[in-house]
Amino acid sequence: MTFKVPEDIVLCLNEAGGKAFLERIWNRKAAYSCVIGNTETAKIPGVSAAGANPDATDFTPAADMELLYFGRCKCIDGVPITPDGIPTPGIITMSALKLAPMPVFIVNGGVRVRPHTPYVEVDGTAGDDIRTGKAVKGAEKAYDRAVVAGKQLARTVDYLVVGESIPGGTTTALGVLTAMGYNANGKVASTFPVNPHDLKAKVVAEGLKACGCSPGMLKNDAMAAVQAVGDPMMAPAAGLIAGAAESIPVLMAGGTQMAAVLAIIKSMDDTVMDNLALGTTRWITEDKASDLRDLVRQIGNVPVLSAKLNFSLSRYDGLKIFETGLVKEGVGAGGSTIAAIASSGGKVTCRSMLDEIEKNYARLVSRR
Amino acid sequence: MTFKVPEDIVLCLNEAGGKAFLERIWNRKAAYSCVIGNTETAKIPGVSAAGANPDATDFTPAADMELLYFGRCKCIDGVPITPDGIPTPGIITMSALKLAPMPVFIVNGGVRVRPHTPYVEVDGTAGDDIRTGKAVKGAEKAYDRAVVAGKQLARTVDYLVVGESIPGGTTTALGVLTAMGYNANGKVASTFPVNPHDLKAKVVAEGLKACGCSPGMLKNDAMAAVQAVGDPMMAPAAGLIAGAAESIPVLMAGGTQMAAVLAIIKSMDDTVMDNLALGTTRWITEDKASDLRDLVRQIGNVPVLSAKLNFSLSRYDGLKIFETGLVKEGVGAGGSTIAAIASSGGKVTCRSMLDEIEKNYARLVSRR
Repeated sequence: MTFKVPEDIVLCLNEAGGKAFLERIWNRKAAYSCVIGNTETAKIPGVSAAGANPDATDFTPAADMELLYFGRCKCIDGVPITPDGIPTPGIITMSALKLAPMPVFIVNGGVRVRPHTPYVEVDGTAGDDIRTGKAVKGAEKAYDRAVVAGKQLARTVDYLVVGESIPGGTTTALGVLTAMGYNANGKVASTFPVNPHDLKAKVVAEGLKACGCSPGMLKNDAMAAVQAVGDPMMAPAAGLIAGAAESIPVLMAGGTQMAAVLAIIKSMDDTVMDNLALGTTRWITEDKASDLRDLVRQIGNVPVLSAKLNFSLSRYDGLKIFETGLVKEGVGAGGSTIAAIASSGGKVTCRSMLDEIEKNYARLVSRR
Repeated sequence: MTFKVPEDIVLCLNEAGGKAFLERIWNRKAAYSCVIGNTETAKIPGVSAAGANPDATDFTPAADMELLYFGRCKCIDGVPITPDGIPTPGIITMSALKLAPMPVFIVNGGVRVRPHTPYVEVDGTAGDDIRTGKAVKGAEKAYDRAVVAGKQLARTVDYLVVGESIPGGTTTALGVLTAMGYNANGKVASTFPVNPHDLKAKVVAEGLKACGCSPGMLKNDAMAAVQAVGDPMMAPAAGLIAGAAESIPVLMAGGTQMAAVLAIIKSMDDTVMDNLALGTTRWITEDKASDLRDLVRQIGNVPVLSAKLNFSLSRYDGLKIFETGLVKEGVGAGGSTIAAIASSGGKVTCRSMLDEIEKNYARLVSRR
């Protein structure tokens, strides 16, 4: 019987590869891994909406991870929200993991606030403001350790899903992509309804100037690019994915931040590219203010899959508002939805996801 | 066909349960996990031989873990040795993992020297000398976090093997067993050829006095016993095992230290006891100066399995000497051997183990 792509998943780039990837993971056993980090870049006013205010972004990754393990946050009351009160996309990931249970492994790329959970340590530290031009320390060590961790995980499951949670991460993605010579200006996404492209470009330009780099100058040195204008999620995410993808398919769960990680992987170990796909939400792939497809196209022939999550008919305004382009992606929301659909052989759908998300939203947010 | 226990594994206690346990894990997929820690107790002169000198014991757990991942140590030259130059039993574990590859997950219970590897963090800290009566901080938190980690691992494999590496651990085992009311005097093992039972008893008595406890007073409070006179490996090992054993069999890989962990598990969650077995070496189960069987018998009806490793015909004196009762166990040497035999459906034997161990020994030790 020919494999049919479920209607809740859209093939957005390299459609044949995307279909083949989906077929490989269909009905197979997955683990979900999330790489977390903090960067001071998130505290530049106007850069990140992944927290009620810039200082609150320190708590967002830890709180997201607690949500995945315990169904509630421990290091903060409630859940992470944007300044407008929109809840973390972690609620989507958590719902996907409830409908299609997968073991969860957190990797600490470098956070300021540690989650009240077990997590894998790769000796990373929290990142500095990229305007310093010295944003990350020890990127290669974190990459190498994460490779080892990825190899271990690859021995336990059929495929791996890797998400991220790091506020400010699209600005650092622009930084690394630019330093590596990709044309990323105006193409990275944003949690904000209006994407502050000019601010991001200015921040990146300052960072590159501070380290004496011009765009493209670090084309062949991904680790130097990360250390100059990247964030502490990137190297361990790239390592984890590369280590696992030596032997199993890996779904990179994220939007334009994962494009930067993909560029790093290509530079560090391009032999694994055939085992990769990007999985995200339609809020990213339909976003007019960013261009994930073009970014991935510049890097390599890697499929992009998009989960057709649609909250327009939700009974909760706080979920409906996702349709206006707020938040869009994070904590591997889109990829975990795709993995839930695939692992369950199509039993999980975007419709059943919305039911589960509404249930969790009601419990966690609307009744506060 | 009736399942036949291979001749390289001896059923030492609860033989029917041991046979049933072996049958459950036969030809199944395992993960190997090792919980590491340091305690200042190891630096009391005469307590531990798990290092060339007392201060060197700080490096032993980290070096053992590097051996498992990379086949060589990074934080020290060579491998951990006893004051007499006998190599770490980690060489046995490493050989078992080479013959029957299993994913390796390290849990940091609380070390002074961190391994150059990825590891799971459960927010533990290195332990103090138990003579203070305040040996460990935050035992319950580490236990709880490790339970979460154990549950995740249990979703990825058919069974889990849990070893330990913590110098001084038999003295802290005596401490916790005594505090919990077990009769353990003269029954815990030792890395030394002559077991310093009197010294251990004196150290434990001092610790109990310092915290105002009498033997048995903490019968119903395992976490208090660990915090008073235990070590930082114990609570996370117990949690990891209990969390995994909710759903899969767990082979507790170790000697009398694992008896203390078993006592803790029984006190924290006795519903998982049916999913447990202890796996160790014949150097432990044939040891006249300790009594693992009696300790386990006091705790519960848990099977004890012993790997018939025999180095008497080795061409290397440094391995032959294991037969004189030096070292005996550690890093889950016996349990990982049993798991290698079981996972391979009997293809791995104690004979093929010796060949592999000699190969690694030659590379790591004799040519230095």
